[in-house]
Amino acid sequence: MTFDLLHTDPETQARAGKIQTDHGSIETPIFMPVGTQATVKAVHQRELREDINPDIILGNTYHLYLRPHTDILKKAGGIHKFMNWDRNILTDSGGYQVYSLANNRKITEEGVKFKSHIDGSMHWFTPETVMQIERDIGADIIMAFDECTPYPCDYGYAKDSMHMTHRWLDRCMNALKEMPYTYDYSQSFFPIIQGSTYKDLRKQSAEYIAGVNADGNAIGGLSVGEPAEEMYAMTEVVTAVLPHEKPRYLMGVGTPINILENIALGIDMFDCVMPTRNARNGMLFTAHGTINIKNKKWEDDFSAIDEANYTWVDTEYSKAYLKHLFKVNEFLGRQIATIHNLGFYLWLVREARKHILAGDFKSWKNMMVKQMDKRL
Amino acid sequence: MTFDLLHTDPETQARAGKIQTDHGSIETPIFMPVGTQATVKAVHQRELREDINPDIILGNTYHLYLRPHTDILKKAGGIHKFMNWDRNILTDSGGYQVYSLANNRKITEEGVKFKSHIDGSMHWFTPETVMQIERDIGADIIMAFDECTPYPCDYGYAKDSMHMTHRWLDRCMNALKEMPYTYDYSQSFFPIIQGSTYKDLRKQSAEYIAGVNADGNAIGGLSVGEPAEEMYAMTEVVTAVLPHEKPRYLMGVGTPINILENIALGIDMFDCVMPTRNARNGMLFTAHGTINIKNKKWEDDFSAIDEANYTWVDTEYSKAYLKHLFKVNEFLGRQIATIHNLGFYLWLVREARKHILAGDFKSWKNMMVKQMDKRL
Ligand SMILES: [Zn+2]
Ligand SMILES: [Zn+2]
Repeated sequence: MTFDLLHTDPETQARAGKIQTDHGSIETPIFMPVGTQATVKAVHQRELREDINPDIILGNTYHLYLRPHTDILKKAGGIHKFMNWDRNILTDSGGYQVYSLANNRKITEEGVKFKSHIDGSMHWFTPETVMQIERDIGADIIMAFDECTPYPCDYGYAKDSMHMTHRWLDRCMNALKEMPYTYDYSQSFFPIIQGSTYKDLRKQSAEYIAGVNADGNAIGGLSVGEPAEEMYAMTEVVTAVLPHEKPRYLMGVGTPINILENIALGIDMFDCVMPTRNARNGMLFTAHGTINIKNKKWEDDFSAIDEANYTWVDTEYSKAYLKHLFKVNEFLGRQIATIHNLGFYLWLVREARKHILAGDFKSWKNMMVKQMDKRL
Repeated sequence: MTFDLLHTDPETQARAGKIQTDHGSIETPIFMPVGTQATVKAVHQRELREDINPDIILGNTYHLYLRPHTDILKKAGGIHKFMNWDRNILTDSGGYQVYSLANNRKITEEGVKFKSHIDGSMHWFTPETVMQIERDIGADIIMAFDECTPYPCDYGYAKDSMHMTHRWLDRCMNALKEMPYTYDYSQSFFPIIQGSTYKDLRKQSAEYIAGVNADGNAIGGLSVGEPAEEMYAMTEVVTAVLPHEKPRYLMGVGTPINILENIALGIDMFDCVMPTRNARNGMLFTAHGTINIKNKKWEDDFSAIDEANYTWVDTEYSKAYLKHLFKVNEFLGRQIATIHNLGFYLWLVREARKHILAGDFKSWKNMMVKQMDKRL
């Protein structure tokens, strides 16, 4: 992987760059649609490619490991071939999902023992096994196996957990040294900064992570319930430490406003289930605020979903028609809302990039943040 | 509406024709995808238009009357504008759905009183109210309000019901005389033959229906559980009576084999939920038989869903990938299977038309019927 930092905004820390991998280039800042089980829910690959048009999507190791499992992915020749997506893919390490299993997992220094949410079978995730799983899934960017702490988290637990994440990082890297690529293209590895909402821990973790000199660096354990101001404060602490010449990925963030504010703080990569999950609940993001399409007020509003036409669905369908589909529980409603939201998110990061390169990012960002903070 | 009968097969009764309405032409034989609630479930209008490409789709009066209701459809300027589909639409009369309500409806000479399956509210469908509802929905072809008898049905009930359907037909036609079109295009009206599985009743009903000289004629009350042989026998009885110069519509039929056999008996129009409903359960129709994609055998079959590529989904996705989507209950699986099945059904009727015009329909039909009668 190579990363070209094309421009850094002089008024903020915002950056425009370009990542190059064996599956093509990724223009940053980028938002990565979440394709948990080798599908971005309710979206055809053709729509993803031609209409939403992201350079990279995300897959979840925990889910892909359980189903279809790596044996099928290996027979298919990797996840790109399995799902017919020939652009970039990033996989998380499964850590986040495993910790969500609450009473059905046990964390030790060795790793995590957990019970499958599907059939109750027992499995072991360790830094070593997860690296092999991520090799076999075959994403272009693979994430370190870390512990993601909850919010709030007491200082002692956050500190101990962070150090274990650092030790696990060393084990991941040692394992990868002995582990050839499963397919005929290379994979980049990103370590993850933890430290909860403690500035000193975040700084310490960022220094440790920066020290391993990986292809890119990620910030985990945020967007887990903390106020946005705390999230921004943590981002600010770590971007001050992280090297400029490597891409920075803020995991699991967030709303359109969160994304713009974090771009301003020097983040290059984002992922979040919000545009897709909220779409399935009838919530649309627009440049002028959010729409709850289930609201009765849209019942006889025959105007286009969004005149901005980020993707073709925006002018193909009216608000009244989309409201009807949600009211009668027709899945087409969820399909339309998902494409709209992803189209908007991708437009937003592309537009941010344009303004960074044009030199007026700060005023554009402030205007957008104000404008998007409404309910229509 | 005009109907040009272009060719009648000399070896069978199969016909190739062309219907012309204010919303364009319909090449027959045709299969009409079912769009119950102003959406063909899980299919975008763009996919319907550009990939599946039917000249006409069907809407259900019962469902559209309840939601979004005719007040919204009228404000929208009719169903075509509401759902953004500018080709032909046909609406049934709601009769079939109302009778399915079993204990929640009461049939009298006046009409049917029923309880909404949504909120339990009481409603009246009479020949007169249904004609006004169909005017206001605004389809290009509207169906008479009839009673659809169950299978099996005793002779006495079938006979009385048939005569009531005839009296209701007269009331429909008298009502329509006084009822201007709601929108700026015309509507054609099709009466419906009943008579259960009794040849004498079917013949009598066909004579009555032919006598009203409508734009087209329909056969109802079949494909309600009777053996295919009984269905074919009834079709044969009525097509012997119906005028050649009007299109013939066999309601609610059926499997690909049912469709080819009924084309051979002189039917021009079909509709059925089978390709869409079965798709959502993981059943694919192909020219070589049916596929249950949930079967474990497809788990590592990375070949295209269907090399025939009726629509782009057939070669975009593999069987193994589609099987995975069904296994993990991802809605994209249902979207893919629906497009495949509708693409196949439309290919099948277009192909039938080609063979009718080429003069080799019978041998092609016999070959296809044999070939499709398999489980892959
Ligand atoms: Zn440490
Ligand atoms: Zn009669």
